[in-house]
Amino acid sequence: MTDTGQSSCPQDTRRKIARGEITGQTSALCPGYAQANLVILPKDWAFDFLLFALRNPKPCPLMEVLDPGDPYTRVIADHADVRKELPRYRVWRRGELVEEPTDISHLWADDLVSFFLGCSFSFDDALVKAGVPVRHLEQQRNVPMYRTKLPNAKAARLGGPLVVSMRPIPLDQVEKAREVSGRFGGAHGAPVHQGDPAEIGIENLEQPDFGDSVEIRPGEVPVFWACGVTPQAALMEAKPPFAITHAPGHMFITDLKAEQIDGHGLGNWD
Amino acid sequence: MTDTGQSSCPQDTRRKIARGEITGQTSALCPGYAQANLVILPKDWAFDFLLFALRNPKPCPLMEVLDPGDPYTRVIADHADVRKELPRYRVWRRGELVEEPTDISHLWADDLVSFFLGCSFSFDDALVKAGVPVRHLEQQRNVPMYRTKLPNAKAARLGGPLVVSMRPIPLDQVEKAREVSGRFGGAHGAPVHQGDPAEIGIENLEQPDFGDSVEIRPGEVPVFWACGVTPQAALMEAKPPFAITHAPGHMFITDLKAEQIDGHGLGNWD
Repeated sequence: MTDTGQSSCPQDTRRKIARGEITGQTSALCPGYAQANLVILPKDWAFDFLLFALRNPKPCPLMEVLDPGDPYTRVIADHADVRKELPRYRVWRRGELVEEPTDISHLWADDLVSFFLGCSFSFDDALVKAGVPVRHLEQQRNVPMYRTKLPNAKAARLGGPLVVSMRPIPLDQVEKAREVSGRFGGAHGAPVHQGDPAEIGIENLEQPDFGDSVEIRPGEVPVFWACGVTPQAALMEAKPPFAITHAPGHMFITDLKAEQIDGHGLGNWD
Repeated sequence: MTDTGQSSCPQDTRRKIARGEITGQTSALCPGYAQANLVILPKDWAFDFLLFALRNPKPCPLMEVLDPGDPYTRVIADHADVRKELPRYRVWRRGELVEEPTDISHLWADDLVSFFLGCSFSFDDALVKAGVPVRHLEQQRNVPMYRTKLPNAKAARLGGPLVVSMRPIPLDQVEKAREVSGRFGGAHGAPVHQGDPAEIGIENLEQPDFGDSVEIRPGEVPVFWACGVTPQAALMEAKPPFAITHAPGHMFITDLKAEQIDGHGLGNWD
């Protein structure tokens, strides 16, 4: 990261993350700024994944894609280092999670391609400001995430099931939550399901596949949004020789205000 | 192509093209239907090109991308065969044009990836209906296309200059032409330049780099649109070992009405 003398919450926070001073989940950090999921793959798998993202824009809204070997962002942050500026990563070998480091500099290689995807943490602040409670923020937890039985559109070697995040919303606020999140098409947009979790293949809300469980109070409906952990489920099935992702909930905090992002940041390249 | 018993101008025309009964340029065929540029590359270059298209959406608006080895469309036409259903192709080896066949079945391989991009022929019919003259249609010619000095955004190994198509428009209709074409974001949209060709590096309008020259009458302004031949200029510079494209002006005629396409057909995958 170039030190431009600027000081903003994302830049300050990413500096602390790069120094290892913040290693936890990021849901409550820098409210109002867009956060991003990360997928890093060798060049041989990069076409498969880019096509997968384009065919599955709901879980995988592209914010930025870097050239092979390039670790520095241009669009979502000015010259941030993808190897250091996320609080925690997951390292995958042949579809198996093997390590959760806080820095991946030692794993970097010239053929690695980095993909940043929108994240629903980006609209949590807008929900709160609209009076919609966001339980994982209230409980200071990571958001609960679940594998579903909904299949992704296949692309070359990648497929797998949709992963969703869940927020319990009071019944009379569900429409408002849908309307507010629907404005953030670049951060998964409106929910994909509400109500009975079994309908989308979730057996037990108290045992999320990723993140923490949160309290569901009487009169609240579980509401489910497409989630940027979906690629991790696809990688577990396709078993590429090597991959790095963010650890669920441990996101890249961008310099962009959440309302700035649309479905596709790549058109604003220059 | 499956014969579904349907009969439409695109399906009938593609059948004739597949049988070798039509081998010429397509500007006047099936007015009102979207036409598409084609780029076929080996898998090793597919990521580079997909990233190039996303970073250069004005010349390269993606309509459909096929899986490696898959020659059949799903989105822009029902099961059309990319190897037969364009009237003429260009075959490139190390950046050199080596052949212009009317069928590429003998060149097909399991690692080839096909990309379809929007084409400005898609809005010619809307221009005519709005009362804007389209000279290459009047003169029954291919549209004139020119290399410019405007650089594309680089993506991995691909870069090169923007290529534009040109239509001479009466001065008092230029705004209407801009407005009408601007509605077709998936087919290059509004013009990128009007007036002095030298400003964008074009020396002689009578000698187009691709297609035919057309008459420019007194009181008419040359108006330039981003063109889907831009990838061919990029391939000439990057020199991948093998590539196939459409021959300029010899497009794939889709089953989609021009007004149906937006900037990004890939979200409608399923």
